[in-house]
Amino acid sequence: MIAGIDLGGTQVRVAVAMPDGAIVGIAKAPTPELGGPAGMVKWARDNAARLADGAPIEVVGIGVPGPSDPQSGVLVNPPNLAGWPAGLPLGEMLREAFDAPVHLENDANLAAVAEHQRGAGRGVRNLVYVTWSTGIGAGLILDGHLYSGTHGSAGELGHMVLDPNGPLCFCGMRGCLEAYASGHSIATRAGRPAADVFRAAEAGDPEAGGIVEEAARMVGLGLLNLANLFDPEVIVMGGGITESWSLVEGGLGEAILESPFVTPNRRPRILRAALGADVGLVGAVEWAIENR
Amino acid sequence: MIAGIDLGGTQVRVAVAMPDGAIVGIAKAPTPELGGPAGMVKWARDNAARLADGAPIEVVGIGVPGPSDPQSGVLVNPPNLAGWPAGLPLGEMLREAFDAPVHLENDANLAAVAEHQRGAGRGVRNLVYVTWSTGIGAGLILDGHLYSGTHGSAGELGHMVLDPNGPLCFCGMRGCLEAYASGHSIATRAGRPAADVFRAAEAGDPEAGGIVEEAARMVGLGLLNLANLFDPEVIVMGGGITESWSLVEGGLGEAILESPFVTPNRRPRILRAALGADVGLVGAVEWAIENR
Repeated sequence: MIAGIDLGGTQVRVAVAMPDGAIVGIAKAPTPELGGPAGMVKWARDNAARLADGAPIEVVGIGVPGPSDPQSGVLVNPPNLAGWPAGLPLGEMLREAFDAPVHLENDANLAAVAEHQRGAGRGVRNLVYVTWSTGIGAGLILDGHLYSGTHGSAGELGHMVLDPNGPLCFCGMRGCLEAYASGHSIATRAGRPAADVFRAAEAGDPEAGGIVEEAARMVGLGLLNLANLFDPEVIVMGGGITESWSLVEGGLGEAILESPFVTPNRRPRILRAALGADVGLVGAVEWAIENR
Repeated sequence: MIAGIDLGGTQVRVAVAMPDGAIVGIAKAPTPELGGPAGMVKWARDNAARLADGAPIEVVGIGVPGPSDPQSGVLVNPPNLAGWPAGLPLGEMLREAFDAPVHLENDANLAAVAEHQRGAGRGVRNLVYVTWSTGIGAGLILDGHLYSGTHGSAGELGHMVLDPNGPLCFCGMRGCLEAYASGHSIATRAGRPAADVFRAAEAGDPEAGGIVEEAARMVGLGLLNLANLFDPEVIVMGGGITESWSLVEGGLGEAILESPFVTPNRRPRILRAALGADVGLVGAVEWAIENR
């Protein structure tokens, strides 16, 4: 059997799947209640064993938030929780607990793998997955394979500079895409939680609608830059903000449609992610299978 | 033997090389004097045969300017010369003339291959080659292989938007990198040829120096975006403007050094291209060898 783990700051989930990727069972728990990394590892192993019903786990895939080193399996910046130190050798801890090889990757990268293997981007050769949520990130499938960069940090779309004189980003630079369009920035600009802004925009509030449209246009400008750099067949949009698809769809496609340089024959399709909340778990399973 | 062709609007060159890439002879001619595509193909074949001294040519690589389709071997926009129609099936014409397989690629892509195999980026896994000249483009070596995109048009760095309210670019968008920093834009801003601007800057003219520094800083902002998206080990800078390396080196590195998000351990090295004027020819030979 194959085990996939989707580790988030709020929730952790583990799935057990057949060698063809068909998931046979899922368990979930609130991450803070597992008592830190060792508790999470034990919880994942116990639940995977229970779901596998005695069958051995051959290989483990895990998606983690934020910067990580896929080679060493180290989480550089683990979820901001008590008992989770920086530089955590999570891959090695899981390998010992499962007595099986472990393949650790950034969650946006595994979402790209999932949408490519099982979601909106099946059958394409080149795909960029964009997650638009509290932050903004990307995962890259190039020539059919995940490209994660020299240090596992390719696809840092959130800190693409779109105006050197733009608003200050938390990273210290000006005009990063996240400074315009992350859920966090939208909430700051509107003076209320991002979810409230989207609800108001859906109800027809013109001020909220304007903020959402402007954010979508800025993400769309980022997509234009991705189109010119990666020349992908599809850009798959995931993350919580894309749940308001009808509000953002137009803005997302605007810059690519406007650019005379991106001729119609080489315009990437902009698609909504197909796998919803399961995307991380499916990605972890597929990544384990691809690397076993 | 291997043949490599470097086709430019001003000059065309052909090299014949040993199977290990060692070049045994080079011929060159002014492109406009060859009487169009058929004349160029005949010239290349005759000169390759002469340089090969009777030995058969096993495979041909050719680098072409501007958009092209590597799969079909078609030049979408050939050099702007009389007798060179759009949609030219140059790969097929060369295949018939040489009676050998032909591998056609964009010239910036082949420069990336050359610097990776034989130049400043030997031994690295991930490299971005940037050509900074009349226009601005990039070639991408990712996980050790050339990545050229779905339609052969990946790496279009010149039209990365760096400010949606920036100066108008010839492509129709605002704030493209080329609108700030291409040789053409530098000349327009300064009201004199770009070469004069660089000469004056080197002689200490403060106005020319300011224009050059500002252009280098904008290219450096583009390099920051490349660093965040591709996480490369090295960025290799080529093209005519990099001949004024001491004037531009500081500006090119500025944004990456300033960004707290690109931590020192994942900063790409910014290197000057090592192969000079031969980069296209070496790339064409290496590309032929890699694909034979």
